[in-house]
Amino acid sequence: MAKMVVSLSVVPLGTGSPSVSKYVARVTEIIKSSGLKYKTGAGFTDIEMDSYQQLADLLGKIEEALIGMGVQRISITIKIDRRLDKELHIEEKIAKAEGL
Amino acid sequence: MAKMVVSLSVVPLGTGSPSVSKYVARVTEIIKSSGLKYKTGAGFTDIEMDSYQQLADLLGKIEEALIGMGVQRISITIKIDRRLDKELHIEEKIAKAEGL
Amino acid sequence: MAKMVVSLSVVPLGTGSPSVSKYVARVTEIIKSSGLKYKTGAGFTDIEMDSYQQLADLLGKIEEALIGMGVQRISITIKIDRRLDKELHIEEKIAKAEGL
Amino acid sequence: MAKMVVSLSVVPLGTGSPSVSKYVARVTEIIKSSGLKYKTGAGFTDIEMDSYQQLADLLGKIEEALIGMGVQRISITIKIDRRLDKELHIEEKIAKAEGL
Repeated sequence: MAKMVVSLSVVPLGTGSPSVSKYVARVTEIIKSSGLKYKTGAGFTDIEMDSYQQLADLLGKIEEALIGMGVQRISITIKIDRRLDKELHIEEKIAKAEGL
Repeated sequence: MAKMVVSLSVVPLGTGSPSVSKYVARVTEIIKSSGLKYKTGAGFTDIEMDSYQQLADLLGKIEEALIGMGVQRISITIKIDRRLDKELHIEEKIAKAEGL
Repeated sequence: MAKMVVSLSVVPLGTGSPSVSKYVARVTEIIKSSGLKYKTGAGFTDIEMDSYQQLADLLGKIEEALIGMGVQRISITIKIDRRLDKELHIEEKIAKAEGL
Repeated sequence: MAKMVVSLSVVPLGTGSPSVSKYVARVTEIIKSSGLKYKTGAGFTDIEMDSYQQLADLLGKIEEALIGMGVQRISITIKIDRRLDKELHIEEKIAKAEGL
């Protein structure tokens, strides 16, 4: 059951290069291993979740991994679409946005 | 101890009026009663937190209150500044942003 | 040439229903007719742009359309990834985020 | 006349240090010299604007200044609250959010 679609962007600050791919790829791995349904975009990864607890747990694992990569500052941007009257699914939201 | 500054915006969708003040004011009350240090802005409320768990707990309470007000859809936007090398405080961040 | 990838979310506030699909679909139509390269996500639409002027022009057209649909309040969330050392492309960013 | 309140966050990526104060302070200077009414927060600076053109012009000046400081990648996060039925002002929004 997916009560909310969470759009998540995580970038490290202060690394020595403008390229942050290896960090972003690591974040995607962690999202993947969480078993949550997700879809990668250019700016955000959309993730289907049932609770804010799932979000907190995921952010904890992401932070731990980035600390392991030597990151000292993290900028996280999140947009949550939460419907109380029905479930929300990534593909359904995309189809509607495309007017299908 | 404040490991992160969370900038939080919560707005209801589909409420039938362009004014959302009563909902936003209720959200601020809940942030206030959480005991966390916060500062209200026009677009976001900045909150000092120690963990993602605190964020999950706060979002749960906010959702509960908005459900009680008959809200059926919530759009939440969050930016988290997390430093691993030192504490972060709202007033210190504002002073630095103003070049003081 | 794409200097930046803009992730854009536009939602109306105060409409009478929690469903905002018809508004979001209209926004996507306008993005499509702009000729800019884009990809729809669940939370954001990613768009390749060359200038902030293109962003301003697009937002103006979107606002005009939503006014035509009777919308009285709009919440726009934007994340811009701007690289000064090389071009940015949606598909390349997605491939890198997926570790490819 | 302020048709919209824009909440703006600009951070450089890849600068080699987790501290980004000097860049953020420079951005605030540019906002100040624009003459637009603004208020600095911990995560965002709220700015009263009349048009998306003002936003595009401001972003252009900010980018130019950061290029001058050697920045190679910029992450910009923006939330725009646009009301079509009345003006929006920073202090009024804050007062309402605090239930005053």
